[in-house]
Amino acid sequence: MIQQGILSRLKSVVGKENFLDSQEDKIAYSYDGTPMLKHLPDAVVIPRSVEHVSQVLKLANEENFAVVARGSGSGLSGGSIPTENCVVLLMNQWSKILEIDEKNLAAWVEPGVITGQFHEAVEARGLFYPPDPGSAAICTLGGNVAENAGGLRGLKYGVTKNYVLGMQVVLPTGEIMTVGGKSVKDVAGYNLKDFLVGSEGTLGVFTKILLKLIPKPESSRTMLAFYNKLAEAAETVSDIIASKITPAALEFLDNTTIRSVEDYAHLGLPLTIESLLLIEVDGRPSVVEEDKETITRICKKHNATEVRVATDPMEAAKLRSARKIAFSALARVRPTTILEDATVPRSEVAPMLDRIRSIASQHNLIFGNFGHAGDGNLHPTCLTDERDADEIDRAHKAFEEIFMSAVKMGGTISGEHGTGLSKKKFLEKITDPPALEMMRNIKLVVDPNGVLNPGKVFSLKPRCEGPMPRSQEQLKKYLDAGVYT
Amino acid sequence: MIQQGILSRLKSVVGKENFLDSQEDKIAYSYDGTPMLKHLPDAVVIPRSVEHVSQVLKLANEENFAVVARGSGSGLSGGSIPTENCVVLLMNQWSKILEIDEKNLAAWVEPGVITGQFHEAVEARGLFYPPDPGSAAICTLGGNVAENAGGLRGLKYGVTKNYVLGMQVVLPTGEIMTVGGKSVKDVAGYNLKDFLVGSEGTLGVFTKILLKLIPKPESSRTMLAFYNKLAEAAETVSDIIASKITPAALEFLDNTTIRSVEDYAHLGLPLTIESLLLIEVDGRPSVVEEDKETITRICKKHNATEVRVATDPMEAAKLRSARKIAFSALARVRPTTILEDATVPRSEVAPMLDRIRSIASQHNLIFGNFGHAGDGNLHPTCLTDERDADEIDRAHKAFEEIFMSAVKMGGTISGEHGTGLSKKKFLEKITDPPALEMMRNIKLVVDPNGVLNPGKVFSLKPRCEGPMPRSQEQLKKYLDAGVYT
Repeated sequence: MIQQGILSRLKSVVGKENFLDSQEDKIAYSYDGTPMLKHLPDAVVIPRSVEHVSQVLKLANEENFAVVARGSGSGLSGGSIPTENCVVLLMNQWSKILEIDEKNLAAWVEPGVITGQFHEAVEARGLFYPPDPGSAAICTLGGNVAENAGGLRGLKYGVTKNYVLGMQVVLPTGEIMTVGGKSVKDVAGYNLKDFLVGSEGTLGVFTKILLKLIPKPESSRTMLAFYNKLAEAAETVSDIIASKITPAALEFLDNTTIRSVEDYAHLGLPLTIESLLLIEVDGRPSVVEEDKETITRICKKHNATEVRVATDPMEAAKLRSARKIAFSALARVRPTTILEDATVPRSEVAPMLDRIRSIASQHNLIFGNFGHAGDGNLHPTCLTDERDADEIDRAHKAFEEIFMSAVKMGGTISGEHGTGLSKKKFLEKITDPPALEMMRNIKLVVDPNGVLNPGKVFSLKPRCEGPMPRSQEQLKKYLDAGVYT
Repeated sequence: MIQQGILSRLKSVVGKENFLDSQEDKIAYSYDGTPMLKHLPDAVVIPRSVEHVSQVLKLANEENFAVVARGSGSGLSGGSIPTENCVVLLMNQWSKILEIDEKNLAAWVEPGVITGQFHEAVEARGLFYPPDPGSAAICTLGGNVAENAGGLRGLKYGVTKNYVLGMQVVLPTGEIMTVGGKSVKDVAGYNLKDFLVGSEGTLGVFTKILLKLIPKPESSRTMLAFYNKLAEAAETVSDIIASKITPAALEFLDNTTIRSVEDYAHLGLPLTIESLLLIEVDGRPSVVEEDKETITRICKKHNATEVRVATDPMEAAKLRSARKIAFSALARVRPTTILEDATVPRSEVAPMLDRIRSIASQHNLIFGNFGHAGDGNLHPTCLTDERDADEIDRAHKAFEEIFMSAVKMGGTISGEHGTGLSKKKFLEKITDPPALEMMRNIKLVVDPNGVLNPGKVFSLKPRCEGPMPRSQEQLKKYLDAGVYT
């Protein structure tokens, strides 16, 4: 617990109207999109200026409490879950698009801008910001940068890190730092910017972000292809890539997911197929038509039972929704939904899906599988019930086996959700020890008192033998107790 | 000077056939592509295994000498110039392409593979590795990764960092670390990989590199457009971007450069024009033809006096050579050529070129200008003579003004050459102090004894007041002399 005196100082930093500590407020910010993780913060503060952010962090260093920045809290790895002795720094009020520079194809935004609203704003000017995480309607750009969020368009357009040109960031020590700029090429000094992207709120709080834009594709075509065999869907994916087409989306759903989606949204999907592919191509009209033809041919060659091609934007949206609502649809099936993002090289997608099915059946669990087939970023999703301790235990074991299989196939434990709290024990297992050591050392040098989102991504190695004290009092207690002798 | 005893230990690490210390060898590796910088190393070693690299670095930490890794030495910011007390680690013998994985569009290479040879090897399989620094015929992929090299295709395809998927790297402490993999999406833990790219040989020695490939564009078209006014060439560039075409190359040459090129290669370029643009579009044949037409129209709209479009690959190569030989052609004009890479946001290209012209004339210097107009990465090139101390002094002043102007326009001091030795004093001026502090702190934590390419990018801040000792003896001397009292 943070002492009342310290909380009062915090309140005077941001003003009492920006300081929340009622039980309701604390509960509201005690969890994020990750199932089964929650922790009450000691208070929630809404900074109104970069100086507020800086002062809160300086106070945290002085008084040894933790700070966890948060946007919409839609993360899926527990990155914004409060920790012990912690104040939540609420950034979703910072929701202004500060500048859209059409000449230089760049935009300055505040971190609380909703990703979907930013898409609309730039598309209205004929521009395009590709990263489109599944939560685009509610998540914030600051959260996207902190997690290096991906999305459906990753295969063709890359992920968030490919679109961050610069930032103003408040470091854990309270210092305000600006890096990057509108020059698309910049190699002056170490690449701090790309290092901060995806650091999951542990190395700084973004207060302004400079994003790269591209011209909006002139046209697009959306199609669904249905398969009786999963392997045939996988072969279609390989063949599309081999034919030198890079679709804007190349997504798959398995049968469990298809049935959940159909039950939820009544899109007219066949219930007996083993898999469907959502394929979207975009670009210049002539190429898009060519690609549509080629892809239809490839789908049929691999025994697609049907290929539906949207003829207008409304129908395209409908086809796309089969994939877009996959998570929500699966979440209706059972009380608890654990969505993960084990990722493998593209060539390993079919073997990995086989492996997931066998692991699920071995542990007597229901899994829905969907994801980004084009880049190997899968979303094995366990449909479970957190009140059933035994089933949850089996789910954890299954995910451990899934992650280890992904790594064995040359893949990774997270393609786009981050490590956060929920996967740090796996990170510590799979990361080359010198790399883990380097991550820890850099965290320590940037955040010497461990105040910013501590314990996320990896555990901080105690700098002394035994437990790490979080305060002077604690240190004294440990010393008196002879902990270090 | 490194003591003979230490050099003997070094020789026994790599074997005497891989240890060079004749005066000729030392001279051969005392300089790189950067004018006016050279320093004799104490020895040159050729490691034959990753263990050799590791052992050399461990010995460096034990015995307090510096190690500078080097590929072909074509760098333009002094990144591979030997430092005091230094051994050169020659990596250009590591020249094997280890694997080209066509399914996952990835390749493992050794760091000494020549970039141009790698281009040929992957293109023979219908694949494409876009980064194409001007020195592609001689530079190494390891050097490209160390410098985050760019090239003509940066506008459309990005730079080296966009193509590095993973690496095996020997850290300054001698530890061997592997990060990344064939999964194109990977957010597990901090992004060490992208941080190591562009760290200019100061944080690790790459021993294996995993590169991303893309399908080779099916066709391309190359054209040259001539302008009597530079402003009209700049307007053409803006208009091409505004028309949503992203050319594979969008390059310019000024009159001084054009005349040097023509004098050298007799390409039939008009000598009176103020500027030419080299424009290349690539992709699917139908789009390439459309783009060629649109671009020709835009060029003419902005008063291009002529637009030459290549009709076959031979002619395309000839047109391209006007830009490709720009540096060599300028280098013939006077004894010393200082080529820089001040970079500005795209909208500032024309004002920046005006500024360079006025700075050059003010200091009574000859400048040729060319570069990547599409992404604002300019190459102001001073044609001078290093034997003329006064002129060199004026050149340094001019470059300082050029860099400061670029930064004032929202640009940077280096778009693709790195900071190295030649620009570190500017880096220290233009970088936000907390960012510089973070760079220094990370260097210290990764390379606590400062053995790997020390003094490049930035000066290491002494960890004590006064000069930093490089050895126990030196420390003792400083202590005895009362340096720290």
